[in-house]
Amino acid sequence: MKTELICAGTELLEGKLNTNSSYIGERLGWYGLELSFVTTVGDNIADLEQTLKLALSRSSIIIITGGLGPTFDDLTREAVSAATGRKLVLSREALSAIAAMFVRRGIEMPKNNERQAYVIEGAKLLANPLGTAPGQLVAVEKAAGKDKKDNALLFLLPGPPKEMQPMFEREVAPYLKKYESMIKKSFALHVFGLGESAVDEKIRKIVEAERKLDAGGVSFTILARQMIVDLVVSVRGKDEMLVDEMLHNIKNEFYEALGENIYGEDKATLESVAGGLLMKHRKTLVTAESCTGGLLSQKITSVPGSSFYFKQGFVTYSNESKVKELGVSEETLNKFGAVSEETAIEMAEGARKASGADLALSITGVAGPSGGTSQKPVGLVYVGFSGSGPVKVFKINFPGSRTDIRERAANQALDVLRRALMEMETKPELKRKSRK
Amino acid sequence: MKTELICAGTELLEGKLNTNSSYIGERLGWYGLELSFVTTVGDNIADLEQTLKLALSRSSIIIITGGLGPTFDDLTREAVSAATGRKLVLSREALSAIAAMFVRRGIEMPKNNERQAYVIEGAKLLANPLGTAPGQLVAVEKAAGKDKKDNALLFLLPGPPKEMQPMFEREVAPYLKKYESMIKKSFALHVFGLGESAVDEKIRKIVEAERKLDAGGVSFTILARQMIVDLVVSVRGKDEMLVDEMLHNIKNEFYEALGENIYGEDKATLESVAGGLLMKHRKTLVTAESCTGGLLSQKITSVPGSSFYFKQGFVTYSNESKVKELGVSEETLNKFGAVSEETAIEMAEGARKASGADLALSITGVAGPSGGTSQKPVGLVYVGFSGSGPVKVFKINFPGSRTDIRERAANQALDVLRRALMEMETKPELKRKSRK
Repeated sequence: MKTELICAGTELLEGKLNTNSSYIGERLGWYGLELSFVTTVGDNIADLEQTLKLALSRSSIIIITGGLGPTFDDLTREAVSAATGRKLVLSREALSAIAAMFVRRGIEMPKNNERQAYVIEGAKLLANPLGTAPGQLVAVEKAAGKDKKDNALLFLLPGPPKEMQPMFEREVAPYLKKYESMIKKSFALHVFGLGESAVDEKIRKIVEAERKLDAGGVSFTILARQMIVDLVVSVRGKDEMLVDEMLHNIKNEFYEALGENIYGEDKATLESVAGGLLMKHRKTLVTAESCTGGLLSQKITSVPGSSFYFKQGFVTYSNESKVKELGVSEETLNKFGAVSEETAIEMAEGARKASGADLALSITGVAGPSGGTSQKPVGLVYVGFSGSGPVKVFKINFPGSRTDIRERAANQALDVLRRALMEMETKPELKRKSRK
Repeated sequence: MKTELICAGTELLEGKLNTNSSYIGERLGWYGLELSFVTTVGDNIADLEQTLKLALSRSSIIIITGGLGPTFDDLTREAVSAATGRKLVLSREALSAIAAMFVRRGIEMPKNNERQAYVIEGAKLLANPLGTAPGQLVAVEKAAGKDKKDNALLFLLPGPPKEMQPMFEREVAPYLKKYESMIKKSFALHVFGLGESAVDEKIRKIVEAERKLDAGGVSFTILARQMIVDLVVSVRGKDEMLVDEMLHNIKNEFYEALGENIYGEDKATLESVAGGLLMKHRKTLVTAESCTGGLLSQKITSVPGSSFYFKQGFVTYSNESKVKELGVSEETLNKFGAVSEETAIEMAEGARKASGADLALSITGVAGPSGGTSQKPVGLVYVGFSGSGPVKVFKINFPGSRTDIRERAANQALDVLRRALMEMETKPELKRKSRK
């Protein structure tokens, strides 16, 4: 029994990254299913039909993403109709769901969107809560099929990942669960403060030892992005207890090797972890940003519930606003410049005082592409942290583009905050020990 | 003549993003070549052979990435041999290149790597300066081929992007350049203020008329993302003047149909266009954000040179900071709430006054996931704009997640700014006319 994926969309052939194949490939693995083929094909009905016919001849589960929109280049419905020999019929149910979506949005339904209500005869509709294109599930008897086992299931899903992903979870996953004979579990650890090679060196022995124990069942991935290193470990096996034990052991060894450079697991982000620590310690935060222009506060407030600890942010892009809002002294700006340790200190202190927050983060730097000098090159960033003691400043030279430098600077500031809050956690213990 | 790509590697079926298909798809476009199919297939010799045979039956240029490594699961060589009926032979040239690579690295060559020196009989070696796997170019006469034109070129390239990309540039691109008899040019238009279907309805007639004129030479794509609709039009042809003329005509017709909903072309973004207009009119800007938490100022400052017009931003997440920094009255907050037209007005006015900037944008809303009420549901956002006249406020209900709502609100604010600046442009003309 083969499983395959067909992704329709000319943009995917012209350079756009195909994230649907990555998402679906990974999710199928959870049910012990493996894709045998992923075929990307353009908005061309003949190519789509040829691809569908081939898929029907060799696979039992076929997922198709894309081409369900309302426009002229959305051809999946027509191609499936041609490949299966089934008619397209207007579904009253689909039409009223689409109409209801437009009513909720308070806009009139364009005539075009009626196209999306046409379904393959006999198909089951798959609800799309986030878009107008309903999905479809079609059970196709294969031409050469002798019994029900030779049937193929075709899932038609929309292309936009935001619509496709929840539909996959709600409408496709329940069908796949019954194929689940192998268990696959995984965890991800996120690391800040060590480069990819340094992480690799520290965990390589663990990885190699585990690989020897279980040849095909363990997979490791290391990915680096904007100073963050992600580690993903997956274990497959028939016995859930053994799978859990193996994952548990590997995770423990990774924690031993990487220590508090690991900032979180799975869906944790630097901002969610730092936010959790702020909640725990009942501390409020203010930010003062120059080169990141609001990226840091944007990240912090992307976490639901951040209003409990985030009071406000100052985006002091001009020198004038640094003086006026944060009380940075003109002398400091003249003598040391806006990108300097001294300015970072005064920005953090000033923001904390002006807002009344417990803790303050400041960022000032040269994001580029121009504005760099030999003394202060593009990528030079100062991150300041103000708490109860003296302000701490971190000076870093980030490589990369303007976007990279800003992203890395904001991540660095979040990590500075995280480590400062973790120190607050360990300090009381140290005190207790010293009293003995 | 079709062009297709085959990517070998089980990891690409299990969740790893396929960046090779994105890279090659984009690069082929430079030579007027379009991929018709991308097939990803696992490290399975039967599946690979089947995929290769299908490709040989329909395509003239076939690029294969992956499966050239030294290990047991690298099967591309064997599969190409089986699909073409050509023998694998040991290449002394390849073997010494591999051996030399190990000498340079100062390590002994493992026995495994000898496998990489086997090439398809008659293949030309393609040098791999960054890895051990040499590439291969194989010219295959098709079974049914009557003349040389029916031959297919197979390019075998290694899978790791760091090795593949330089090899593509040095070894594959020169061959592709000779196909560049067709010229391909394209433009992108970006639209704000109309939904995907509404745009489609307005341009469909233009698209259909052009399609009739030139069946295969014109391609259109419509993509929607966070209230923005992108239109991409490509024209292929042998005569550059005709291609240019056709693009010019289509673009003009699109402008006529969509008017000033089109905010920019090609690499333009809402923030770069609004920034350009600010520069042109020598106006400075301040932002006051609540639910977007700095996303708006982050977008504005992502444009290099934005310090010329962006003075500062207030991220007034708490009510207290709205009062203190922006002078929003406590009465307004108590009577109408933080998410209200009245608060949006006072935020914009207050920010403009506090900063001395010419123009101010404010955003206040319910980003969710919680905090919504029946009166003020999740997604309700007010955008305020303060210039020389009275503050304008826009009330919108955005669908989607917390991230979507924030992105859409920030984009909406940028579009409000853009349209206000465009009005400044047209006003003097109107005045002149009225004087006549």
